[in-house]
Amino acid sequence: MFRIIKKDVKTAARTGELVTKNVVIKTPVFMPVGTLGTVKSLSPSEIFDEGFHIMLANTYHIFLRPGMDVIEKFGSLRNFTRYPGSILTDSGGFQIFSLSKFSRVTEEGASFMSHIDGATHFMTPEKVIGIQETLDSDIMMQLDVFSGPDAARERAEKDLEITLDWAKRSISARDNGKRNGNLLFLISQGNFFEDLREKSAKKISAMDADGYAIGGLAVGETKDVMLKMLKTSAANLPEEKPRYLMGVGKPSDIANAVAAGVDMFDCVLPTRNARNGFVYTSSGTLNIKNAKYRTETGPLDSLCDCYCCKNFSAAYVRHIFMTKEIFSQRLLTIHNLHYYAGLMRKIRKSIEDGMFTDLLNEINRMEHNTLL
Amino acid sequence: MFRIIKKDVKTAARTGELVTKNVVIKTPVFMPVGTLGTVKSLSPSEIFDEGFHIMLANTYHIFLRPGMDVIEKFGSLRNFTRYPGSILTDSGGFQIFSLSKFSRVTEEGASFMSHIDGATHFMTPEKVIGIQETLDSDIMMQLDVFSGPDAARERAEKDLEITLDWAKRSISARDNGKRNGNLLFLISQGNFFEDLREKSAKKISAMDADGYAIGGLAVGETKDVMLKMLKTSAANLPEEKPRYLMGVGKPSDIANAVAAGVDMFDCVLPTRNARNGFVYTSSGTLNIKNAKYRTETGPLDSLCDCYCCKNFSAAYVRHIFMTKEIFSQRLLTIHNLHYYAGLMRKIRKSIEDGMFTDLLNEINRMEHNTLL
Repeated sequence: MFRIIKKDVKTAARTGELVTKNVVIKTPVFMPVGTLGTVKSLSPSEIFDEGFHIMLANTYHIFLRPGMDVIEKFGSLRNFTRYPGSILTDSGGFQIFSLSKFSRVTEEGASFMSHIDGATHFMTPEKVIGIQETLDSDIMMQLDVFSGPDAARERAEKDLEITLDWAKRSISARDNGKRNGNLLFLISQGNFFEDLREKSAKKISAMDADGYAIGGLAVGETKDVMLKMLKTSAANLPEEKPRYLMGVGKPSDIANAVAAGVDMFDCVLPTRNARNGFVYTSSGTLNIKNAKYRTETGPLDSLCDCYCCKNFSAAYVRHIFMTKEIFSQRLLTIHNLHYYAGLMRKIRKSIEDGMFTDLLNEINRMEHNTLL
Repeated sequence: MFRIIKKDVKTAARTGELVTKNVVIKTPVFMPVGTLGTVKSLSPSEIFDEGFHIMLANTYHIFLRPGMDVIEKFGSLRNFTRYPGSILTDSGGFQIFSLSKFSRVTEEGASFMSHIDGATHFMTPEKVIGIQETLDSDIMMQLDVFSGPDAARERAEKDLEITLDWAKRSISARDNGKRNGNLLFLISQGNFFEDLREKSAKKISAMDADGYAIGGLAVGETKDVMLKMLKTSAANLPEEKPRYLMGVGKPSDIANAVAAGVDMFDCVLPTRNARNGFVYTSSGTLNIKNAKYRTETGPLDSLCDCYCCKNFSAAYVRHIFMTKEIFSQRLLTIHNLHYYAGLMRKIRKSIEDGMFTDLLNEINRMEHNTLL
């Protein structure tokens, strides 16, 4: 299911292939976020054709809207959305604790009020696996507890115990479930405590999962703290299985996490930044609202060969962005995702070529020029 | 420039070809509205590939944003937007009198305050031709005075005199201008007074324009009044030149106007309705918000072969519409425009086949089933 192809000599970076029931994914991989089953503004084939053969959707959101009875009629989320690649569904743990109007954890599960209509729901690890089996997700994520960035040690320890118990229960639920080729990933937590990070990673490593995620990071902590935590988590997860850093991130965060041995990433940054007019280019980032692009007849990035840059001027993109034309969001989203696709290709190639450290340094330097 | 191919025996309907400097357009034709140079949510090639080889943009809006210095750098609005078809630019008369914060007509021209920033501008017929020459519009429209739907006779008469004078001045401005193949259309007015409609149409018919428009309709009057007015206008415009009914309309309005000898149409209905979830189908209209589409695995219209209906279920389209995903606006816009493209194809074919009256009756019957 996961095969390491090339290991970097100087860092823990590696390239590999993750085989899901639908596609073969080259790692390190970036997964665009399609919370409700759709990457905002783009068609499923535009995402796939841009080189993204796996995307993220969110169990919590899909469960609330359109609801599971709708998905059941289609047989899978993939059939419903017509996305031709693989879908990884986040369990919704993060959303339950960050989005819903009210949430409460017990050892049994989590109750929460929908952020849509205030209806009360109760989720258990077993139920979340069941839902993801109904979604027929290529990759299912366990339900976990997100304590928030400010949790004290006692709280972090308690939530970690529950998350570890839920990991075990998720494995059992999967084993008792449909077993139709869906992969299950467990999630390591531990907040910003290195010993808890280590404990969490080691404990789930002993459980029989198809991959292992690192959760609870990129929630407001400094870059240094994030890097330290993810290194501890990654170092204590099985080497022969895919490692997935959830919700990260900036190009340099991704590159540094790859150096720590992480294989998979998702983040709203390229797509959300696009909708806000922030553009990744080969020479840093730019803000399309800047007046200097008003009359710019050249593309956003003269070194970029995306659909936007091949066809449209920066002045036109700025015009339709400033006048709130929806088409600007398509163009900027395609452009930013193309940048991320290129970034991941470069990272993979540099590992294959034994040049990863050079690229890492270059990306870390570049980052200083960016706004993001 | 305009060639009539087939005349209907029972009505004034006809098919023809309108040759602009960029494309040959089969008439009767519907032109989608891209006010700011872009049909909302779609790419230029999506519009063109859907069979729309001419679209509408608005001089008033483009003049304000991005501004003429930007267009000048690109040489034309077409170069700026990269739309491969022809562009007809409305003069902005309607917008000056309906959108701006303040407007005042004198015989010389119209002063108005921008609806964007409140800046004051003064437009003359000559200036509007000059702007459209800078836009390099395939079809330029004269500046006209829109009196509003409630104008009394005295006001209507006065505004008509000004509009007729501006027609003459527009012709002179065109003759003294760049003459690089841009067509000029004059606009007949006359509010809801048949004799003024007749006078207006006859007077501009004596002037040397490439086409003649009917303005000031579909602004709140009854269907009967609109039909009566447009018939009077159309009957008094030159038969050998294209006739363009501005801002119309519903499928049945278009079909009835074709019967009166109209060749060209533009309207925001298919695109705006799409964004509001109103969908044209072969069996009438539907509202995508209706709960019965929640679990509908079939397409919006099983007889439709548009990109949306060929690829996506009504349930998916409803899901992304209800969750305000931008992609729903693309899908519904493509679908509704496909419906309009099909309607115009059917109208043209029925005229060629001598079956137009049958189609007209069918469309008039259908309309009773629609919400729009």
